[in-house]
Amino acid sequence: MFELKERDGLARICELTTRHGKVQTPAILPVINPNYLTITPREMHEKLGAKILITNSYIIRSDDRLREKAEKDGVHALLGFNGPIMTDSGTFQDFVYGDVKVDHRKIVEFQSSIGSDIGTILDVFSEPDFTREETERAVDETIKRGRESVPLKGDMLLSGPVQGGTYPDLRERCAKDLSSLDFDVHPIGGVVPLLESYRYKDLIEVIIASKKGLNPSRPVHLFGAGHPMIYPLAVLLGCDMFDSASYAKYAREERLMYPTGTRFLRDLHGLACHCPACSRTSVEELKKAPADERTKSIAEHNLYVCLNEISRIKNAIHEGSIWELVEMRARAHPALLDALRTLKKHKEYLERFEQVSRNGAFFYCGPESYDRPTVVRYQERFFARYRRPDSKVLVGFEEAEKPYSRTYGKEIEAVSSKVDASFIVASFFGPAPFELDEYYPIAQSVIPKDLDHETKERMKKTMERHAHVHGYPLAVMWEGNETLKFLAEMLQGPRKARDSDLLRCRAVLDMQFGRGAADILDGRMIEIVKSKRTGKIRNVLIDGIHSLSMRAHDGRFTLKLSGGKMLMGVLEPPRMRVTVEDEPAEFAAKGNNVFAKFVRDCDPDIRPGDDVLVVNTKGELSAVGRALMIKEEMLAFKRGIAVRVKDSQD
Amino acid sequence: MFELKERDGLARICELTTRHGKVQTPAILPVINPNYLTITPREMHEKLGAKILITNSYIIRSDDRLREKAEKDGVHALLGFNGPIMTDSGTFQDFVYGDVKVDHRKIVEFQSSIGSDIGTILDVFSEPDFTREETERAVDETIKRGRESVPLKGDMLLSGPVQGGTYPDLRERCAKDLSSLDFDVHPIGGVVPLLESYRYKDLIEVIIASKKGLNPSRPVHLFGAGHPMIYPLAVLLGCDMFDSASYAKYAREERLMYPTGTRFLRDLHGLACHCPACSRTSVEELKKAPADERTKSIAEHNLYVCLNEISRIKNAIHEGSIWELVEMRARAHPALLDALRTLKKHKEYLERFEQVSRNGAFFYCGPESYDRPTVVRYQERFFARYRRPDSKVLVGFEEAEKPYSRTYGKEIEAVSSKVDASFIVASFFGPAPFELDEYYPIAQSVIPKDLDHETKERMKKTMERHAHVHGYPLAVMWEGNETLKFLAEMLQGPRKARDSDLLRCRAVLDMQFGRGAADILDGRMIEIVKSKRTGKIRNVLIDGIHSLSMRAHDGRFTLKLSGGKMLMGVLEPPRMRVTVEDEPAEFAAKGNNVFAKFVRDCDPDIRPGDDVLVVNTKGELSAVGRALMIKEEMLAFKRGIAVRVKDSQD
Repeated sequence: MFELKERDGLARICELTTRHGKVQTPAILPVINPNYLTITPREMHEKLGAKILITNSYIIRSDDRLREKAEKDGVHALLGFNGPIMTDSGTFQDFVYGDVKVDHRKIVEFQSSIGSDIGTILDVFSEPDFTREETERAVDETIKRGRESVPLKGDMLLSGPVQGGTYPDLRERCAKDLSSLDFDVHPIGGVVPLLESYRYKDLIEVIIASKKGLNPSRPVHLFGAGHPMIYPLAVLLGCDMFDSASYAKYAREERLMYPTGTRFLRDLHGLACHCPACSRTSVEELKKAPADERTKSIAEHNLYVCLNEISRIKNAIHEGSIWELVEMRARAHPALLDALRTLKKHKEYLERFEQVSRNGAFFYCGPESYDRPTVVRYQERFFARYRRPDSKVLVGFEEAEKPYSRTYGKEIEAVSSKVDASFIVASFFGPAPFELDEYYPIAQSVIPKDLDHETKERMKKTMERHAHVHGYPLAVMWEGNETLKFLAEMLQGPRKARDSDLLRCRAVLDMQFGRGAADILDGRMIEIVKSKRTGKIRNVLIDGIHSLSMRAHDGRFTLKLSGGKMLMGVLEPPRMRVTVEDEPAEFAAKGNNVFAKFVRDCDPDIRPGDDVLVVNTKGELSAVGRALMIKEEMLAFKRGIAVRVKDSQD
Repeated sequence: MFELKERDGLARICELTTRHGKVQTPAILPVINPNYLTITPREMHEKLGAKILITNSYIIRSDDRLREKAEKDGVHALLGFNGPIMTDSGTFQDFVYGDVKVDHRKIVEFQSSIGSDIGTILDVFSEPDFTREETERAVDETIKRGRESVPLKGDMLLSGPVQGGTYPDLRERCAKDLSSLDFDVHPIGGVVPLLESYRYKDLIEVIIASKKGLNPSRPVHLFGAGHPMIYPLAVLLGCDMFDSASYAKYAREERLMYPTGTRFLRDLHGLACHCPACSRTSVEELKKAPADERTKSIAEHNLYVCLNEISRIKNAIHEGSIWELVEMRARAHPALLDALRTLKKHKEYLERFEQVSRNGAFFYCGPESYDRPTVVRYQERFFARYRRPDSKVLVGFEEAEKPYSRTYGKEIEAVSSKVDASFIVASFFGPAPFELDEYYPIAQSVIPKDLDHETKERMKKTMERHAHVHGYPLAVMWEGNETLKFLAEMLQGPRKARDSDLLRCRAVLDMQFGRGAADILDGRMIEIVKSKRTGKIRNVLIDGIHSLSMRAHDGRFTLKLSGGKMLMGVLEPPRMRVTVEDEPAEFAAKGNNVFAKFVRDCDPDIRPGDDVLVVNTKGELSAVGRALMIKEEMLAFKRGIAVRVKDSQD
């Protein structure tokens, strides 16, 4: 029902299949109140391009006329919309008015009977100021109702909202228990009070705790999130669906939404928008227009802004820049910035979903950029995997133009002619040995010259850790000819000729596949083919066989099958392995991609974009390819490709 | 010709009057190349809403057909556009192709003869990599040509571009010399190479140096700035006009502009835009469309994005949030962030133009926010103007909900019942005594809880400076009852009853009008009227006469005439005074506003929004009112209001 198409960490573009067609996520579901059509469903679809709607089954059921029509002709006829329709159950109405008296089984059966594509159980709204006991009761009752509702869903997709207030452990438990039931969608419920009071920091904790407990192959719907301000951050954390009633509510209050906040019509100098609704009018005209017309125009504007922000988010996922978008948008309100800064608490979790590289450059956006998964991973791997050359002295350089080995070419030559040295740059990402200077993200980044103090402090600490972990007998920072003289006096004796290309291959192998991977080069005949145009390494032949190719855009290796075979020899299982059922493994051996549903096991350290070893249940290599998912996703998804096979027997 | 309407520091909304109508700035002038009409002038106006165009007189003059038509029917008929048209002179063509052979007088005469609304002299393009000598030659020749061109302008407005490469002193000198001539508009020239290579940091220096030398009553045009990425920062620094040829150039390369950067069509997942051009199509359709159609559609999109960003900037000026917009947009590229961080070098300059308060809250956006004029001013005035109560002990509190006096009400009561203490909060802006806790920007700000280290360090240093400057015998940070016990033991003896309302009035008077202003309360009968609803101070009666009103939104005083009279007694001239010619001063005394052209002198410490004393040439008080400009602007502008009179004799 749900297939992963593209990703940027937890942020993802997926496809959800319903009886009324497919929907691409992230998606916004405009709320249709059948009693109050600010914008008709037809306009939603034809004019605004909304692909899926949400309406409230409780409201329909409570109104004799609507109920009769819905039961007779179905909810699609009632709304006059033939695309996917999700229905809500009355939980939020119960929270607001406290008077929803309906049996939770009946409301699911009702949704099924009117042909809803995605129904919702009647969960219990857990308010942020609930005590732990009250919250536990809400969670337990939600799970109980979920258990009783799932058997009634028929061929309707069913959504089971995660409750648990602001208690992360209760959120996670609720999510886990609901995941064990046959739900198709998981809203995160009870968050509207957090959104309304700018408690984005708490919201982050709620989303992350829920995501940790949820089955990763099911879409996550942030219930009631109707303002574009929160979308980038919510998508970054893996939310796939949003619903918006706010577009109309805000419009009635003459409030216009922007990705950067909300403005009253009366406070605006101009509309600052070229959407079809705003193109027809102006601030002055809107102020003078009849109330209904004004409300409709602003409601349309609000929806356009929401839809546009989702489109921008998809572009960001597509180009791998969701973090940059989030960090920029976080400047819309200090509470968002506070929320962004709490993400560092979860950096290990976020790192697991992060792709190994991307096409575009890494942009520093502020001190918070230092906690991005890309930075966390580089440092983690550098300290765990990198093996330094056995030179006696380390020469450090300040950050400079990239690649460093070109910028500092003369200095390296001068030092190397005198002493046996290794070279490193104190880069934003941490210590960057010259042999890794084309490895993502070292070369593929744009960092301002004048960094904030917080980042500088943290960079300094990382460099100190390097000195500690990879202790050289002697380490100096380059300060021109003085350094050279000093080194020449200190270190006399035989110099080792180092092959910088080989050093680079070794460093990349260890960083990419794990410490020890570079051992495949030991005692072999190594031939390195370089690009005539760029001088960069392209292919590595081991004992005459093309085993590895280096990618120009991220400085990482693409495995050939023979390279994979060699890695099998030096990497203990389960390292870099995706274990596939035997029959699909044979398929993979013929060059076919590996589908997630056939994956039996996977190295938990594999990251999206990693070059991996596809093995059968006996642990024999079938193929090599590019992982698109991490372990828990491969084991959860029933649709979609887990490994794109790049080389195989045939 | 040019009138200031609204402002946010140097950023301003103005009105430029031309023979073909008025133009509101900031404005974009789409470039029309008469040989290559991607979008026709008619479409520019009718569809895209462009209000002013720019075309190139050198290109027109070099083409027999165009020249003939322009000389016969005028440039407006040639382009088919009846709004204001600016013309350029060939300088940029000379820079690019190096073959412009035209007499600089002839080209000005030509522009005048074809009816251009704003002509441009043939200045000499100073390239960023010019030596100092080459740059000086370009500057000298530009000034010489300017001097020879001005007499030829007729009734055409004439623009004199500031040159000077990347030498700030040459830029400033060139600007000063050109300002002494009868120009109407000042482009900043020679910046395209900086823009193209992301040298925004250098661009900042160029703009600021030019602004410092220029007559502030003339519009400033950033020549060749056609990408929306740079607009917020450029407007923040006082640029009023931009021209864009890039919209079409980028379109031909299939590049779409966004406020956050540029994207190739091939890299986009979706257009993420609802402008009229994008509403008609999609990424897939655009890729398949005939080249001409695609170029036109992207060109329209690019212009819409530019125009939209200008509209957003105007909204920001209108609500006083240009800094927030700039700090957010600076995340679009690390080079912009680097440029933003260099603004701290110019904070004293920027502070002079900053209004005293605004309606909305101050939003912290990152470590750079600490260098905003609002922060700089608060600290500068606090240390220069604030006089502490003569209590023996200072009790400090951590940042908290605002207003602080409400949040810490109980603690204050507890301490005050035992010892004679003053209270202060270690706020983001610096030390915030409780009596200033409603004074802008202390209460009117939203600061995240988890601040970056750079900001924390700087806050700490400011607090230390406070301890140093305003030395109390004893200063402690509040740590609950322990502090209370400690204080009670340390300090025994008589307690002073302090009137917190009076303390507040004194502190605000000194901060707002200068140290000593509070002396008007000494030995008088003071009656304080408070709002029944909010409990805030509203009016202050001195010896029975309503002399001051406190504004709820920024905690500052509005002067009544009697309050002004008292201030005359304690503030030495020229403090807080705007000196006006005698006849207009009489007018002001009757309640009329003061126009800039009648201002003879002004206290250089007056800031936009300040409550000021309007005096005649004999120094007698005529009225009190709100300053809308600073000294150098009042003396330069020939149109517009300098002081909005609030109270006067009649």
